[in-house]
Amino acid sequence: MSDPFFQPVSGFDLPRFAGVPTFMRLPHVSLDDPRIAEVGIGLVGAPWDSGTTNRAGPRHGPRQLRDLSTMIRAGNGATGVRPFELVNCADLGDVPPNPADLQDSLDRFTRYYSRIREAGIVPLTAGGDHLCTLPILRGLAADGPLGMIHFDSHTDLFHSYFGGSMYTHGTPFRRAVEEGLLDPKRVVQIGIRGTAYDTEDRDFAESVGIRVIAIEEFFKRGIEDVMAEARSIAGTRPTYVSYDIDFVDPAFAPGTGTPEVGGPNSFQAIQVVRELRGVNIVGADLVEVSPPFDPSGATAWLGVSLMFELLCVMAEQMAAAT
Amino acid sequence: MSDPFFQPVSGFDLPRFAGVPTFMRLPHVSLDDPRIAEVGIGLVGAPWDSGTTNRAGPRHGPRQLRDLSTMIRAGNGATGVRPFELVNCADLGDVPPNPADLQDSLDRFTRYYSRIREAGIVPLTAGGDHLCTLPILRGLAADGPLGMIHFDSHTDLFHSYFGGSMYTHGTPFRRAVEEGLLDPKRVVQIGIRGTAYDTEDRDFAESVGIRVIAIEEFFKRGIEDVMAEARSIAGTRPTYVSYDIDFVDPAFAPGTGTPEVGGPNSFQAIQVVRELRGVNIVGADLVEVSPPFDPSGATAWLGVSLMFELLCVMAEQMAAAT
Amino acid sequence: MSDPFFQPVSGFDLPRFAGVPTFMRLPHVSLDDPRIAEVGIGLVGAPWDSGTTNRAGPRHGPRQLRDLSTMIRAGNGATGVRPFELVNCADLGDVPPNPADLQDSLDRFTRYYSRIREAGIVPLTAGGDHLCTLPILRGLAADGPLGMIHFDSHTDLFHSYFGGSMYTHGTPFRRAVEEGLLDPKRVVQIGIRGTAYDTEDRDFAESVGIRVIAIEEFFKRGIEDVMAEARSIAGTRPTYVSYDIDFVDPAFAPGTGTPEVGGPNSFQAIQVVRELRGVNIVGADLVEVSPPFDPSGATAWLGVSLMFELLCVMAEQMAAAT
Amino acid sequence: MSDPFFQPVSGFDLPRFAGVPTFMRLPHVSLDDPRIAEVGIGLVGAPWDSGTTNRAGPRHGPRQLRDLSTMIRAGNGATGVRPFELVNCADLGDVPPNPADLQDSLDRFTRYYSRIREAGIVPLTAGGDHLCTLPILRGLAADGPLGMIHFDSHTDLFHSYFGGSMYTHGTPFRRAVEEGLLDPKRVVQIGIRGTAYDTEDRDFAESVGIRVIAIEEFFKRGIEDVMAEARSIAGTRPTYVSYDIDFVDPAFAPGTGTPEVGGPNSFQAIQVVRELRGVNIVGADLVEVSPPFDPSGATAWLGVSLMFELLCVMAEQMAAAT
Amino acid sequence: MSDPFFQPVSGFDLPRFAGVPTFMRLPHVSLDDPRIAEVGIGLVGAPWDSGTTNRAGPRHGPRQLRDLSTMIRAGNGATGVRPFELVNCADLGDVPPNPADLQDSLDRFTRYYSRIREAGIVPLTAGGDHLCTLPILRGLAADGPLGMIHFDSHTDLFHSYFGGSMYTHGTPFRRAVEEGLLDPKRVVQIGIRGTAYDTEDRDFAESVGIRVIAIEEFFKRGIEDVMAEARSIAGTRPTYVSYDIDFVDPAFAPGTGTPEVGGPNSFQAIQVVRELRGVNIVGADLVEVSPPFDPSGATAWLGVSLMFELLCVMAEQMAAAT
Amino acid sequence: MSDPFFQPVSGFDLPRFAGVPTFMRLPHVSLDDPRIAEVGIGLVGAPWDSGTTNRAGPRHGPRQLRDLSTMIRAGNGATGVRPFELVNCADLGDVPPNPADLQDSLDRFTRYYSRIREAGIVPLTAGGDHLCTLPILRGLAADGPLGMIHFDSHTDLFHSYFGGSMYTHGTPFRRAVEEGLLDPKRVVQIGIRGTAYDTEDRDFAESVGIRVIAIEEFFKRGIEDVMAEARSIAGTRPTYVSYDIDFVDPAFAPGTGTPEVGGPNSFQAIQVVRELRGVNIVGADLVEVSPPFDPSGATAWLGVSLMFELLCVMAEQMAAAT
Repeated sequence: MSDPFFQPVSGFDLPRFAGVPTFMRLPHVSLDDPRIAEVGIGLVGAPWDSGTTNRAGPRHGPRQLRDLSTMIRAGNGATGVRPFELVNCADLGDVPPNPADLQDSLDRFTRYYSRIREAGIVPLTAGGDHLCTLPILRGLAADGPLGMIHFDSHTDLFHSYFGGSMYTHGTPFRRAVEEGLLDPKRVVQIGIRGTAYDTEDRDFAESVGIRVIAIEEFFKRGIEDVMAEARSIAGTRPTYVSYDIDFVDPAFAPGTGTPEVGGPNSFQAIQVVRELRGVNIVGADLVEVSPPFDPSGATAWLGVSLMFELLCVMAEQMAAAT
Repeated sequence: MSDPFFQPVSGFDLPRFAGVPTFMRLPHVSLDDPRIAEVGIGLVGAPWDSGTTNRAGPRHGPRQLRDLSTMIRAGNGATGVRPFELVNCADLGDVPPNPADLQDSLDRFTRYYSRIREAGIVPLTAGGDHLCTLPILRGLAADGPLGMIHFDSHTDLFHSYFGGSMYTHGTPFRRAVEEGLLDPKRVVQIGIRGTAYDTEDRDFAESVGIRVIAIEEFFKRGIEDVMAEARSIAGTRPTYVSYDIDFVDPAFAPGTGTPEVGGPNSFQAIQVVRELRGVNIVGADLVEVSPPFDPSGATAWLGVSLMFELLCVMAEQMAAAT
Repeated sequence: MSDPFFQPVSGFDLPRFAGVPTFMRLPHVSLDDPRIAEVGIGLVGAPWDSGTTNRAGPRHGPRQLRDLSTMIRAGNGATGVRPFELVNCADLGDVPPNPADLQDSLDRFTRYYSRIREAGIVPLTAGGDHLCTLPILRGLAADGPLGMIHFDSHTDLFHSYFGGSMYTHGTPFRRAVEEGLLDPKRVVQIGIRGTAYDTEDRDFAESVGIRVIAIEEFFKRGIEDVMAEARSIAGTRPTYVSYDIDFVDPAFAPGTGTPEVGGPNSFQAIQVVRELRGVNIVGADLVEVSPPFDPSGATAWLGVSLMFELLCVMAEQMAAAT
Repeated sequence: MSDPFFQPVSGFDLPRFAGVPTFMRLPHVSLDDPRIAEVGIGLVGAPWDSGTTNRAGPRHGPRQLRDLSTMIRAGNGATGVRPFELVNCADLGDVPPNPADLQDSLDRFTRYYSRIREAGIVPLTAGGDHLCTLPILRGLAADGPLGMIHFDSHTDLFHSYFGGSMYTHGTPFRRAVEEGLLDPKRVVQIGIRGTAYDTEDRDFAESVGIRVIAIEEFFKRGIEDVMAEARSIAGTRPTYVSYDIDFVDPAFAPGTGTPEVGGPNSFQAIQVVRELRGVNIVGADLVEVSPPFDPSGATAWLGVSLMFELLCVMAEQMAAAT
Repeated sequence: MSDPFFQPVSGFDLPRFAGVPTFMRLPHVSLDDPRIAEVGIGLVGAPWDSGTTNRAGPRHGPRQLRDLSTMIRAGNGATGVRPFELVNCADLGDVPPNPADLQDSLDRFTRYYSRIREAGIVPLTAGGDHLCTLPILRGLAADGPLGMIHFDSHTDLFHSYFGGSMYTHGTPFRRAVEEGLLDPKRVVQIGIRGTAYDTEDRDFAESVGIRVIAIEEFFKRGIEDVMAEARSIAGTRPTYVSYDIDFVDPAFAPGTGTPEVGGPNSFQAIQVVRELRGVNIVGADLVEVSPPFDPSGATAWLGVSLMFELLCVMAEQMAAAT
Repeated sequence: MSDPFFQPVSGFDLPRFAGVPTFMRLPHVSLDDPRIAEVGIGLVGAPWDSGTTNRAGPRHGPRQLRDLSTMIRAGNGATGVRPFELVNCADLGDVPPNPADLQDSLDRFTRYYSRIREAGIVPLTAGGDHLCTLPILRGLAADGPLGMIHFDSHTDLFHSYFGGSMYTHGTPFRRAVEEGLLDPKRVVQIGIRGTAYDTEDRDFAESVGIRVIAIEEFFKRGIEDVMAEARSIAGTRPTYVSYDIDFVDPAFAPGTGTPEVGGPNSFQAIQVVRELRGVNIVGADLVEVSPPFDPSGATAWLGVSLMFELLCVMAEQMAAAT
């Protein structure tokens, strides 16, 4: 079992509505804290949404996700995994953005995630909009391009917006491929749907070898079949998992900026994560939770439930690798 | 490709939150505008709910639907159809109701839709409550009774309410059959469910030959089978499509006056529209979106997503017929 | 047909938004009313939530459920059952709690339900949190332990909270088994999911013979198969039905204190009730609707729809038994 | 002291969230109830808003006002009046509207209030929109025109809307003067403000002698001075009091269809009612509370607080007159 | 009277909930429209909030303000001014921002307002956050520094944020003074309050001669006295009026990103605008309305009410100058 | 200046939406932390509402207050006080309640506040309901009865509820006087209003010498005069300040369980705190903020603004005493 210091506070001892809210009631250990060296998985908030092209709000995501995460208990009722006993987990706090300067924020994020990688910590990030994933990949892909399993209703593969702006939440994976952070042959995008500007993003995906699985195919083939393919694409090499909450149908996740109807329900949303067992995950994120569009926190509750499922898979894998 | 004048503003050029909101960012062309003659499909708002027997609100539907419709892009990601390139589409504005005089409103609507028909425009209407469909049918059925494919949780086939009131949102299709606007043999109602006053509506349906498909049958047989039957009932002659948002489960469409639990999800809600390909549609509507009961606009977002799917089917058919 | 006095007011006569709201627009007949002797099924409000360990609110459930219940009509559209014509139904009002004294409330509830049982009335209760079910069982299980079919995402079988508190909404069925109110061999819990403190509750279930059907098994086997087993477990002897609204996915039932994602949709939520036909039901409840967490009333609307389905099954059974 | 039957349930005995909600927890005594003859002041719901020209919703007012009214206690903390001990008060239920037929509703209301007058009951009505006051006056003004003290941000004195519709919530007092229900010389309108279509209403007021006190004058002179004039205008003969909740600033009363900024605060809103002492009130109403635009019930809470203040003044006067 | 083309649609003719929503139901005349030459006052939307340091949202302000502005009628009930009859007014649409590039947006705004100035139009802008005012001033101050009367709870005079970012909604007037767009001796800031980082902004104000009137002084001296001083400071030369909605107390204007309690009420908020009569206004704005933080639109309703009061003062002055 | 460790994080460095939310962005120092000895003023959360007789929710108060408190800056704009530079302030975390056992919670609280007193820390508590103040007083009044300045709309002086329950949020000060924790001659209650059960509380106040200032007297005399009397009643001996957020009008503080209309506005709410300068404050609280009834956080924002004003007065006094 991991260090008692790293165990979450139990709801049997302190009611869930009490206490300063850290992610899953874990200890708060910043990168400058001496105990940082003991951390295996770091939960990080990325409160930034300067890449958002329509409805802003994900900058408030980490705080609401922390709040709702106090309802997470220590064990996974379905799989039996108890992640906090397998790996030392901690809340690392938030990476500090500069909301008034997009490029400065990109640099701050990159430096922050480089430090995480250098500390040997596997990050599980709570966004923030999807542009956050670009500097995370810049920080993590130091040893060569990563694979990626990507759940989303959008490809985020466009070239630019508004007459040339190359850094928005619709472009991070175009940039990541161009910069050599991702190996397109090892990238799969699952759940794509909604109306389309044009086919530029799909054409790019095809040209570089990214596999795009539209929602119609997803529902037709079923989760097990699709995820087997996803694992096969990612292979055994280091892989990043990026989960945009708008992958899920907006009835289950209303609090997001660019919802697309016709998506998976919450049970399916969980199942795809459980099917990640065995993937060599070097980092993961849950992005685009936008509290101003869901004051009740329902979306954040689904979001932290998904983060916990990701954590279980990551902890199990790390414990097995030890 | 259709006239550039009739192309919607792109979110790549002007952010989606900017600009005066017309339906799908199309040009606003009123019936008195010289360019009305070039319009093939007219998007019309019907802000009227005097037929509502319980919770009013659909009078505010068109405005919220216009607002949310700014998030629609130019192409259908699943079917590839780009309706605005196939047919000249425009926002015709709202048909003017008289909220203080039900009969006057019925007459105003009838005259308005007669003009639309005479102008050779196929209307796609955003309600308003379901009584709106009665004067629309009065305006469109000039050449004999129409067929109808009707998605709803209620039959709207009752005779009268409150001691004799014959014009409410629970009676439009009873009136339409009585007035010879609909050919009951070519009418199918899909998704019926919820508690029942009595069987008067079902008895009427049976007596005149309207086909009623309850939600249990719908789920059991599946969408493809049910919609094949629906297309067969409608046949090749002119058919109207009426889509009450309460067809969809209230988790996906909370903003409506008479929700009934146990309905289709949003993916299924879309699929039934895509199965309308080939139907000879002379008009369609999406009704009963009630913004006061869904301030977040989630219901309107589903509503405009469905309107776009309807538009794709209609445009494809019209382009093929040319 | 039952007494006209016991028929609900029709929405054809008085609009659904009018009138003092009783459950399903039934007459209000308190336990002290002379006509109480004629009542077959009593709808009771249990406005109490002192057992809630996290987010309070179900104390407000009965009032909101009454409000939304005015949208229920007299017949079941799917099964054709018209319960108010089969059995005299009435709104008995609320059992009076003492929100400042947990043990006093337990005693008040027990006495109240003892009177109901003695009056030969079958209670259908609207909670309140799940601790309410404990004193209901104390009142009803006078002739020996009951069976129970229990829909929930939690087992509510824990021993104690907060250093020894034995009466919370996480413990009622542990107490009920210990007190001999339930026969654990005739208890089945359906829909269990979510994160877990530990396996203490599951271990207890196994040790006493309670059957726990997790949500994964539920989805895999399907409703008909699971419910056939449930009926078999309950057998023909007296059985209580307890329905925690958090059995349903929070997209369909957001207004509850401890939601767990990944649950059934509203159609499935209804179907399990319809599969209770033939069970010897001596009482039922619908608990944990929490209006402060769902001001729109969507959860209460689902709740009263489920109460109506329960009522149909109960009335049909009682009419058949006569 | 009045009959114990007519005393409200105390929050010391039954918590305020418990019980079927009647107005101020009073007994429900319909016009057909034998005990109706003992009632001195009748609280009536008028769930009707067919006269609303913009945002509907007041049809839901009575139910929400009843809900919030359970927080009213038995005594007036400031004046010491305990109305329920002075006069027998009861909740008479709702006057039944026909939401699909405006003229039928007007007739139903008129007959209902005629019966109230004939029963010797003084009505305190919870609207509904302001058109409700017209048939109330028709029912009450059997012995000649009444005076009126009217709190509102609008005069409601327009002739017609939408090309001739003479019955909307913007016209009731024009009709009432024309029909001889009100003596314009004994009518005062207080709090008028907001933008104006034109001066037609003000011109009419001036031509018939209605005194209009704009909000600027109200604030400048102060409540005591203005209300002294109001009492002087009403004189000692029978007077009706009509209180539109939009008299109050929308920060205090957001839930209404036509709010106008720049109004009185809630303390001032109460003070004007207390200054009605001594007026010969034969009926009063509180209208235009619109729950769909204030789900939290804040407006209804102010509304019932004002109804209680009205009730205190009315009860004190009736008790003094005995 | 002005051209009939420029008259708003009346609510007597078309209900206020109907029609495509332009500002105050005025015609939509873009800068490229031939009729732009006839426009005297242009209402402009500035949907941009990239300068926001905490809670974003004002990018959605113009759309919600247009929606609520449909409730504005043609005349000012208090002052009698009918602005649309005095000056040709039009909705010019929105100035197009680039949400992904702050400097590009500043340039786009500057060019847009330069064109407005060159067209001889006086702009009344609906923001957007307060950084919008900087490029507006750049566009308008072509002939030398302007005076400014500024209503706000913050001075917006800071030098920089987040380690050097000089363009945020906390810095526009520091920049405007530095760039020579404002004459600090002719600038007055009214309503300042709330907690403070430090005194850097106040020190700057003092050093350049900007007059800061804190809320305590405002309440103590009264509106007439304060506004007389404000008019005196502005003098007779060209003056800009900038109105941050957070000047008003958050009970009246909750929908804003940085509310400060203890502000004026809505009546006072209006009175200060009426006291601007006689000021030589060359442009005005109402900024910081943030719809995500006020879904009900109460803040936008106050905002458009204030815009109408500004419009009345501006139109009266322009008509007098002709 | 105080220790840099105890300075809050600046919004100039880290945006206000970022970071784990502690009270006012202060360091989190629990009672077991070695640095606790350096703390002068401790901000404590009291997440408990078991004393609430109607609408629960204040258990969630501390978390929402912490969230909103991140918008507090380091200095008081009006008084110039910079409390964090005068006294070492820290967030002590939450006192742990037992939501299932009222007496156990009372004991836990008493022990916790005894420790605070023994550590020489002056507590500023964020409730929680008003029953929390009883065990706080038990913990603090070790050296004899305290004086109290109490802002509230209720006296909270009742004897018991629900047939004898002596511990609710309507009874704490009755108990405190009976237990000798308060010296009634040095207690003043300000702002009392609303409807009344009876005069039992007022009679008790009079019998023991508590001074009750009703809201009518408060408005009539003005803040300066009333507060001068309050300071005189409290005198120079140790005094506790208890601030129930329902002292403020519900338009400014909607999120509370028992609102009473007709209260002070937010400017007045602040002014009364500033008038506490010179009082010998040994502890203070801000109670009854109920997030479920104000999801937007407006009430919490007012609440933390008031806590900051209290902190300024307390810090100034402590610094002066050194």
